[in-house]
Formats: sequence, C-alpha cells, structure tokens
Amino acid sequence: MKRTVTFLPDNASVTVDDNTNLFRAVKASGLYVLSSCGGKGNCGKCKVIIKEGVVESGKSRSFLSPEETARGYALACLSRVKSDLVVEIPPESRMQAKHKIATGANMEELIKLMQSAGGCLESRISRIYLELSPPTIDDNIADYERVRRALDKAGFDASLLHMNFLVLKKLSHVLREGNWNVTVSVFKVSAVLEVLDIFPGNATRTRYGAAVDIGTTTVVVYLVDMANGHIIGTASMYNSQVKCGDDVITRIVYATERNGLKELQDLVVGNINTMLAELAEKNKVPQAMIDYIVVAGNTTMMHLLYGIDPQYIREEPYIPTATFFPLIRGKSVGLQVDPQAIIYSMPNVASYVGGDISSGVLVSQIHKQDKVSLFIDIGTNGEIVLGNKDWLVTAACSAGPAFEGSGIKFGMRAMEGAIEEVEINSKTYEVNFRVIGDSKPIGICGSGMIDILAEMYLSGVIDQKGKIREEIGSKRIRRGESGLEFVIAWRVESAINKEIVITEVDLDNLIRAKAAIYAGFATLLAHMDMGFGDIETLSIAGGFGRYIDVERAITIGMLPDLPVDKFQFLGNTSIMGAYYGLLCDQLRHEAEEIAKKMTYIELSVSRSFMDEYMSALFLPHTNLNAFPTVKKELEKRKKVV
Amino acid sequence: MKRTVTFLPDNASVTVDDNTNLFRAVKASGLYVLSSCGGKGNCGKCKVIIKEGVVESGKSRSFLSPEETARGYALACLSRVKSDLVVEIPPESRMQAKHKIATGANMEELIKLMQSAGGCLESRISRIYLELSPPTIDDNIADYERVRRALDKAGFDASLLHMNFLVLKKLSHVLREGNWNVTVSVFKVSAVLEVLDIFPGNATRTRYGAAVDIGTTTVVVYLVDMANGHIIGTASMYNSQVKCGDDVITRIVYATERNGLKELQDLVVGNINTMLAELAEKNKVPQAMIDYIVVAGNTTMMHLLYGIDPQYIREEPYIPTATFFPLIRGKSVGLQVDPQAIIYSMPNVASYVGGDISSGVLVSQIHKQDKVSLFIDIGTNGEIVLGNKDWLVTAACSAGPAFEGSGIKFGMRAMEGAIEEVEINSKTYEVNFRVIGDSKPIGICGSGMIDILAEMYLSGVIDQKGKIREEIGSKRIRRGESGLEFVIAWRVESAINKEIVITEVDLDNLIRAKAAIYAGFATLLAHMDMGFGDIETLSIAGGFGRYIDVERAITIGMLPDLPVDKFQFLGNTSIMGAYYGLLCDQLRHEAEEIAKKMTYIELSVSRSFMDEYMSALFLPHTNLNAFPTVKKELEKRKKVV
Repeated sequence: MKRTVTFLPDNASVTVDDNTNLFRAVKASGLYVLSSCGGKGNCGKCKVIIKEGVVESGKSRSFLSPEETARGYALACLSRVKSDLVVEIPPESRMQAKHKIATGANMEELIKLMQSAGGCLESRISRIYLELSPPTIDDNIADYERVRRALDKAGFDASLLHMNFLVLKKLSHVLREGNWNVTVSVFKVSAVLEVLDIFPGNATRTRYGAAVDIGTTTVVVYLVDMANGHIIGTASMYNSQVKCGDDVITRIVYATERNGLKELQDLVVGNINTMLAELAEKNKVPQAMIDYIVVAGNTTMMHLLYGIDPQYIREEPYIPTATFFPLIRGKSVGLQVDPQAIIYSMPNVASYVGGDISSGVLVSQIHKQDKVSLFIDIGTNGEIVLGNKDWLVTAACSAGPAFEGSGIKFGMRAMEGAIEEVEINSKTYEVNFRVIGDSKPIGICGSGMIDILAEMYLSGVIDQKGKIREEIGSKRIRRGESGLEFVIAWRVESAINKEIVITEVDLDNLIRAKAAIYAGFATLLAHMDMGFGDIETLSIAGGFGRYIDVERAITIGMLPDLPVDKFQFLGNTSIMGAYYGLLCDQLRHEAEEIAKKMTYIELSVSRSFMDEYMSALFLPHTNLNAFPTVKKELEKRKKVV
Repeated sequence: MKRTVTFLPDNASVTVDDNTNLFRAVKASGLYVLSSCGGKGNCGKCKVIIKEGVVESGKSRSFLSPEETARGYALACLSRVKSDLVVEIPPESRMQAKHKIATGANMEELIKLMQSAGGCLESRISRIYLELSPPTIDDNIADYERVRRALDKAGFDASLLHMNFLVLKKLSHVLREGNWNVTVSVFKVSAVLEVLDIFPGNATRTRYGAAVDIGTTTVVVYLVDMANGHIIGTASMYNSQVKCGDDVITRIVYATERNGLKELQDLVVGNINTMLAELAEKNKVPQAMIDYIVVAGNTTMMHLLYGIDPQYIREEPYIPTATFFPLIRGKSVGLQVDPQAIIYSMPNVASYVGGDISSGVLVSQIHKQDKVSLFIDIGTNGEIVLGNKDWLVTAACSAGPAFEGSGIKFGMRAMEGAIEEVEINSKTYEVNFRVIGDSKPIGICGSGMIDILAEMYLSGVIDQKGKIREEIGSKRIRRGESGLEFVIAWRVESAINKEIVITEVDLDNLIRAKAAIYAGFATLLAHMDMGFGDIETLSIAGGFGRYIDVERAITIGMLPDLPVDKFQFLGNTSIMGAYYGLLCDQLRHEAEEIAKKMTYIELSVSRSFMDEYMSALFLPHTNLNAFPTVKKELEKRKKVV
C-alpha cells in the first residue's frame, strides 16, 4: 500500500510504501533532517512533529521530553509510516549549516539559497522584445541593420553586432512572420553584442536553460525556466562512460590508448540529450528553446565532453588542455538544443580539481567566511578545499571509487538491494543489516561499507590494520578465493543465492580510500601550518556525502574527530553551483574568481601527503589519540586492539 | 607560330600568335595603353616604342612625327607582331588616371596602388610566434592558460581570450609537437582576442589569404601571400550559377520559387574551391593555411554565398537580409580552407548596390576628391556612384546583361569567335568586322554590339529609335523570325554555317540597356542639382568596361558626351578592393565608411528616372544637342536622321 507523506514547512510530498521508515521517507523527499547516527535511533537528532496521520514508533531512548511527546514529536528514524502523513520538520532538526540544504526536489529553496549567496536572476543571455518599423522605399535599410537600429534604440550598444549565419538565414522570414515584432536573444562579450537567436512576436517568457553536473559516475540535469529561475524538472542517470572505466584514469586511458575519445564524448552527450528530451517532453518545453547550458564536472569530464584529448592530465606534470574552457555552441558537441545555445563550463582549477569544486565552494560560501573551513566533495574522486575569504588551497586525494562499489567484491551503488546499514555484535559477531527497499540484499553500498569497516573494527573482527582476526573463532570468518573474508549475509538471507562477504582485499581498498581522504585534509592543513582544531566547519558535498554517517566515518578515520555540529552536508553542490551560474552571471563570475584564487597542491608528488597517508592506513589512525571519541567507544566495547 | 612580347617598364610578357595586332597583345598582357577609338587607328593615342624585334605597321595617318618614327614609335593598333618583341609603353600612352590601372597580371602594381590609397600590410589576422616555458609540477597551469600568459607577456591583452574548440582539441598536441614553441593566428574583435589556429614552430611566414570577386557572370580569385602581400596567382571562371539564370533576378527566382538556394550556394562555393585548389596546388600552398578570405560582389551574390534566402531583395521595398554581413567561418559555407578561416564580405549598400561597388569606390578614390566624379561598374548590372569627399549617392540602373550577350540572338561573351569590332560603310552598307582570335565568327560580344548599334545608326541603317530603315534597300536587311534583321556576317563568312544577324528585338534590348545606364547618370546628377558639366572624372570599372570604346559608347548615348580625357578605365575594381581589404584592415574599415556614407536612390520607383529613361530610348538621345560630337559625326557622314 502506498502512503503520501507531506513535509512542512517545505510542503514537499513523497509517496512511499506503507511501513516505510520515516527517516528514509525524509531522504526520499530530497529534504534533510539532522542525524549524526544516520538514522539508527542513537543520537535523538531527527525530531519531527506528526501533524496529521499515524506512525508506529519504536522506543525512543528517552530522547523526547514528555512535553515534546504531548506535542506530537517523534524521532523520524524510529517511526514507521502507517497512513498518509503531514509531518513538520522543526527548526531544531533542520540543517544548522550557514547555508541551507537544497536539492532539485526542493526548488524554491534553491533560488532562495542562490539569492542568499548574493545572486539574482540576471543571466548571461537576455531576451529583448523589439517592435520594428516595417521597411518602406524611403526606409529601406537591410533587415540586419533594422534589428541593429532597434537594439540601439532600446539602449543596447549594437555598434559591434554579430549574428551567426544560421540566425541570419532565417532573419528575413522571422521578421515578416512576426509582422516586424520580434524577440531576440542577445549575449554580450566585451563590446560585441551577439544575437543568438530570433523569434517572431514576444518570446521573452519562453527561455530555458539547463544546469548539468557531469560526475564520473552520475550525470544530473536541471531544466530551468530562465524567466523566473524555477526548476521545471530534474533528472539523473549513471554516466554511460562507466562501461569504459570506473574512474577518470581508466577513462583517460580508454580515450587515449584505445582511441575512445569520440565514444566517451558521445556517451555523455547522449546521457544529457536523453535527460533533456525526457524533461522537455514531460514539461512541454521545446528543446530548441534551451539556449544556455552550464556544466560542472571534474576536469577530465570536461575534456571528454568537449572531445579534447585528456592524455596529459594523466602524465606528470599533469597538465590539462584547459581549466577555463572557452564557450562553445550546443551543436558543436551534439547537444539537442538551440544550435546557437551557449555551453559554459564552470571553471576548473587543475587536472584533478574541476568545475564541480569551484561550484562547491561557491555554494558552500567558505570563500566569504572569516574563519577557516574545510570543504570536501566525496564522489568518485575526493577533492578538498581549505580556506576562508582571504585564501583557498585545494587538492585531489585520489580516493578512488571504492565507496561507490568499485574494487569491492560485493560493492554496488546506493540502490534497491544494497546493504546500507550494518551492526555487528561485539560478543557474538552476529550481523544485523538494513537493505535499501527492505528486500533481500544483492550487495553493499558505500554507507554499508563504512558501517562494516567501523563495526568490524569496533567489534574486534578486524585489527587496526584491517586484517581479519581469525583467532576470534567466528563462523562468519572463512577463507575465500582472495584470502580471508567475513560473511555479512548468509546465502538464505541474500537475493543472489550466495553469501555476501567482505574480503581482506575489500577492506584494504576501503582503508586506502579513507586514508587518502584523511591524508588530504591533513596535508592541506599542514601546508597552511594549521591543525583540525582550526576548522570552523567541515562541509561535505557530493552524492555519496549525502549518505555518510559522520560518526561512523570518524570511527574509521575517514573524517577527523571533530564535534558533530561542525559538519554540514551540502548535497550535490556541483549541480547547485551550475544552477547558480546559469541564472546569475555575477555568481558565474564569482566562481571564476574562486577558481583563480585557489592554489592547487599536487598531492601525488607531495612527501608530506605520503607520510600522512601511511599514518592513515590504520583504523582509525596510527595516532588513536587524535580520535578521542573512537577511543572512548572502543573502551566502551572493551575491545581496544 | 607563337611570339613572345615583353612590355616595358612593367616587364610583363605575353605569348601571342604571329601577326597578332599589337594593341590586342597589350590587352592580353593585362596592361593598358591609351586609346579613344578602341584600337582602330583613328585617335593616334596608342603610341608604343618598338625596342627589339619587328612589327608590320599599317599607315599611321601621320599621327607620328618623323622624330618619333625615327625613335621606333608605332601605333599599337596598326602594328602586327612579326617576331618576339620588346615594346615600351611610354608615359604619354599610359593611363592618365589619378590611379594607375592594375590587374592581377600586374601584381606589384596593385600593392603600390594600395599603398598610394593609404594602405599598408596590416591584416585583421596576425601570426605571433611564442616560445613557451614547458610545464613543471610547480608551474602546472593548463595549456590554454599557458598560451594566454605568453600572449599577455608578448603585449597582447589576452584577458578575454577565445579559442574555438577545434583549435582547443589539437592544442595539447601542437604545443608538444613544437616543443613549446608555437605560432598562433590571432584575430581581435573589440576586447576579445581569438586564437584562430595554432601551429608548431615558427609559422609566421606561411599565412595565405584570398581575395574573391563574385560577379553575376564571372568569379575571380587572387591567392595572396599574407606575409608580403604578393599575389601568388590569379584565376577566374564563369560563375556556374549562370546555368540557373543570367541575371540576379532570375537567380533570386531560382532560389526562392524553385527551391534552388542550396544549389546556387554550392555552385559558387564550388567555383571558389576549384580555383583555390588549382592555385594552391600550382603554387604549393597548403589550402589549410588560407585563413582569411575577403569577398566582394553584389548583394544578391553575397546572399547566395551565405545561403541566405534573397527573396525580399526582389519584392518592393527591396530589402536585403544584410548589407554589412557578419563574419563567418570558411567551413560554414564549405570553403576548403582553414576551418577557422574568416570570411569577410566587403560592405554592401543596398539590395542592388553591393560590396563590389564599395570596393570600386575605395579603388577609384572618388571619396577623397574635392571635385565631383562619376563611377560606374558595367558588369551584368550597372551600378553608378556620384560624389566627392563630402557625399556619395548611388543607384543601380538595371541595365541587364544585354551587353554580355543575354537576350541578343547571336550575343556571346568576349571570347574566341566573338565579333568585337564592326564598321558599316555609310554608302554601301557593307560590313567589316574583327573577330577575337581572328577566326570565323560565331557570335557578337558586347563591344561588337556597341559598334553595331553605333555604326548602324551613323550609317543610317537604323533610325534614332533603333528601327531598321527597310527603305534604304540593302540586301543585308531582311525579315526573319522576329521581324526585321540586318546581316552582319554572311553564312560563308561565319563559323556556324548560318548568317549572323542583329534583329530589331536585339536592337531594342541594347537600346534599353544603354538608356538605363545613361538615365542612371542623369538621375543621380539631377538628384544633386548637377549636370554632366560638373563631372571631373568618369571612372569605368568592370570586366566589360575594359573593352568599351568610349567614342562608340558616346555615339549610342550610353556614356555622356564628355571630353575623352575625362574617362578612365579602372579594370576589375571589385577584386582590387577585396585585395585592399584583405591586406589592410584600415582600408577594409574605410570601405565600410564608404558604404555607410552612400545614399542609395531606388531608381525603379523614381519618376525622374523613368523620364530620363524614356528620353534615352533614342540614339543617342532625344536631345541630340547634348551629344555635340555625335551630331558632328552625323553631319560628317551627312546622315542626320
């Protein structure tokens, strides 16, 4: 049975199965509710108020006062949906970040967020409605000159006018079709005023744009009404390039050594076209009216989108062809939009810090703060920015796509059938897990892997190096094809008729990934002669970031052991920044300033990074004292190894 | 037998058949020698000095003094080549125009001419050689940014840099192929510096351009070495669009009503490509190194080149899509040059006054004179400009292509087999004619038609209205399919086994054509409250203009009865102006100023033009007193009708 849950004050609705966990319903709606424990009933932060309808609530460990209970408060993670609901997320449970969280599903929020960052609806392209005087024998200037004259009259300096010949070709017909009333799309670069397109009549209200996030793994598209900034629709799909390689390095190899550049370009362009077509059809938007596309992604993704050989990104000294990409036309890469549409790519910083990160900083606003913040985008790669209003340093920590399932025997992305939460009993070593969709599991997603690593360590199944302690004598420990492994789900529990296990190779991959992230933080701080104590906020962006349980991530030493309230989750800041840049040219320009301001540290040749990395190849770290809460938890479980 | 004739001081050589008329040999060399009578031995102006070799000279009507004869002087039109020759054209026989005549065959002359018009070798595109520092881990900016930095260092403001993605695609490879020494082609529009192309090593000396004249009938291409302005080679061919119609109106109809726009575009692009390929191969110039093409032609030809529907050029109030065409890329129209090559079209003025005319004014320099001049380009159309340094008025007199053979029973263009000169005995009505190539005739070209009209009138075969006077009783007068006709060449004399005749319909067409030209002159003068007496110079441009015998053209009332020394022949000013614009951006800009300054008079709706035209539908004119020299000649022949 389906239930509709409406969340206030956003008035966002989501349809879920009966008995769905309310915490997951919040996630599914695209909204956020505070949680440090990731929805396990351990932190008491996900308080909501049930305004209408019925929930079935588990025990609340007395996180709620009697007064709160009387007022309808419940913990979302301990409540199950039993009817259609109206639920309020009270201020204390909303993200306490300097910036609120917004996603595509929460569209009005995103405009407000952009406005709070100083943005306004002033795009790079504008539509101007012109009422021309019809030509006569005495006023017989050319059509093009007539448009120029009208633009001049309307206050635009059209002395340096440019019109692509595709527009010129239809000019005479459009002018007459519109009975000399037309709308032009204009775009100004320096003193040159370019007419991008022309339409009969008044077409000032029918301009559309697209914000696109090209992730190594996922491509996201927002279709935007440029007249009012509304997000008409959003879509996302896996980047089809994945079949040519999970990470940027294998893609580069595929492009250069296997002559696959064109194929990779076509794949991602195909993804964007598929989603644009879907969104356009669904929302009755003519695709040819999409004239501005702002794309954010890592530097390699941008090279592949433009069809530029990324070879030298991979070879020392790691030089991309471009970081600030020149504008190109939609038709140049095969996007099915106005042929004259302009594609702008958010400014990249270096080979391994792309436009997704300048977008991220723009959204995080750390470049405007007095105090020092860390920003990390955890996607297929892990890029870190440290800084404040005076300076910004950045690095890519080549974490690799382990947490997205790559290189992990039963790894998978966060989708139906993925084990997303795991608990291991410290005495019996028995395993409890939760599966996305409440079905039998088929694999383990990133948050499940973090849980597994944390729980295996805390329960003593593995040692500080991630080695399985055979001596504990659990029946879940066994020797498989690639050495020792630990059974998470027995054959009867799984949907794939075999045990779902985690191997020592998996554990090693995960530890190397988390170590790279932590070492990245530490290296940037050391570079600035700082420590984690100097950090005011640690902002986590990225699709995967959304699902991270901060306490668990601290437990494995992926994130530093800071107070939980210093962390904020920003969501997909890449698409958010692209959306900002699409709508507001001033913010687009601000992103360029951010990118220019960032100092890039090449970690792959950094001695300091190697040292930090080696120290971080332990759980949580060679220096356990740097992780007091982990130490405390270990003591609690009496399993200090 | 072939003879080589070398002309001094130009040192231009031409190979001709033995016994060729020396006047024609001068023409064939592309040089000019003064002549009012068109080479008939009547004016004594075509004096040359035979420095080496032997000529056979006819009687010279004592135009030469004994002293001149002693010094080797001869009249070119009365001399026949009898050996290899070295011939000097003395200053007194050279064109006494304010500007010297130059054609493609006289390449150094054209550069000098351009320089005398204030031009210099400063094209819109420049090549810059850059020695970049190779990237290191510590200096790891992107390739694109490295080029930007180097351009900045070299003194170019590259803050607004643009690079087409085709160039961006090869950037990384070219930089490394050139071992970080590269040459960029840059192009500046407003503050934007565009990199058009990039080459490994120093390629500053290998830049090529093309000047193109797209005539309704003929297309001419000059291939130019942009490093020194030298014309590497020239080519011309008939505009293949001719098969879709002789004049611009039939081409417009073909484009719009018969859906032939793309075909017409492909035809002319094919013509240019053919000639570029031929010139490039012959001169070992890589076509991809041609990066700038300046095109001049009438407004309709420009629309067809760009592939723009010319429909409204033909419909009142006669509005072209553009007069000042935006720049386009070579690849946009299919030119086989650098895909990034820039195509610039010389500025047009109105639907029927094109870039060929702004080119013509630029070359004629009438826009810099204190006194008033008339300029006419006699091609398939007839465009007229009247003015001085303060003002310019212009009109198209829709003369039509009659003088190019269209609508004339035995009309043909000036090629082998065409009757080019005709004399009719005023008593016997017998005909003498001269044929290009000295073969039997196959038709009559423009200069032959003017001769025929003039001679038929002066000898009394036709009356002032162009009607054949049957009553004179010549056996050459007979009734053919389309009424009365006059035999120019008998069947036995012709190469086509039939009589070559001129019909009353032909005569009518020719008279209408010449009347339109004269009425154009008269209307522009009347518009400015002026008369022919105010004219300082009458410059004649155009392919056909080259072959006009001024006295004959006055006889039929095509040209006004001004002293012969007021006429100057400029040759193909359309290609010359395109060449100026190609090499010198300041002159290109001057052409735009010229075009802006010109006031266009639409003759087709002018009452005054219709009156003038009606008056000019007589030979030479209703008002014979306006043609005193014709009146005198008639009196001499005692045939005043």
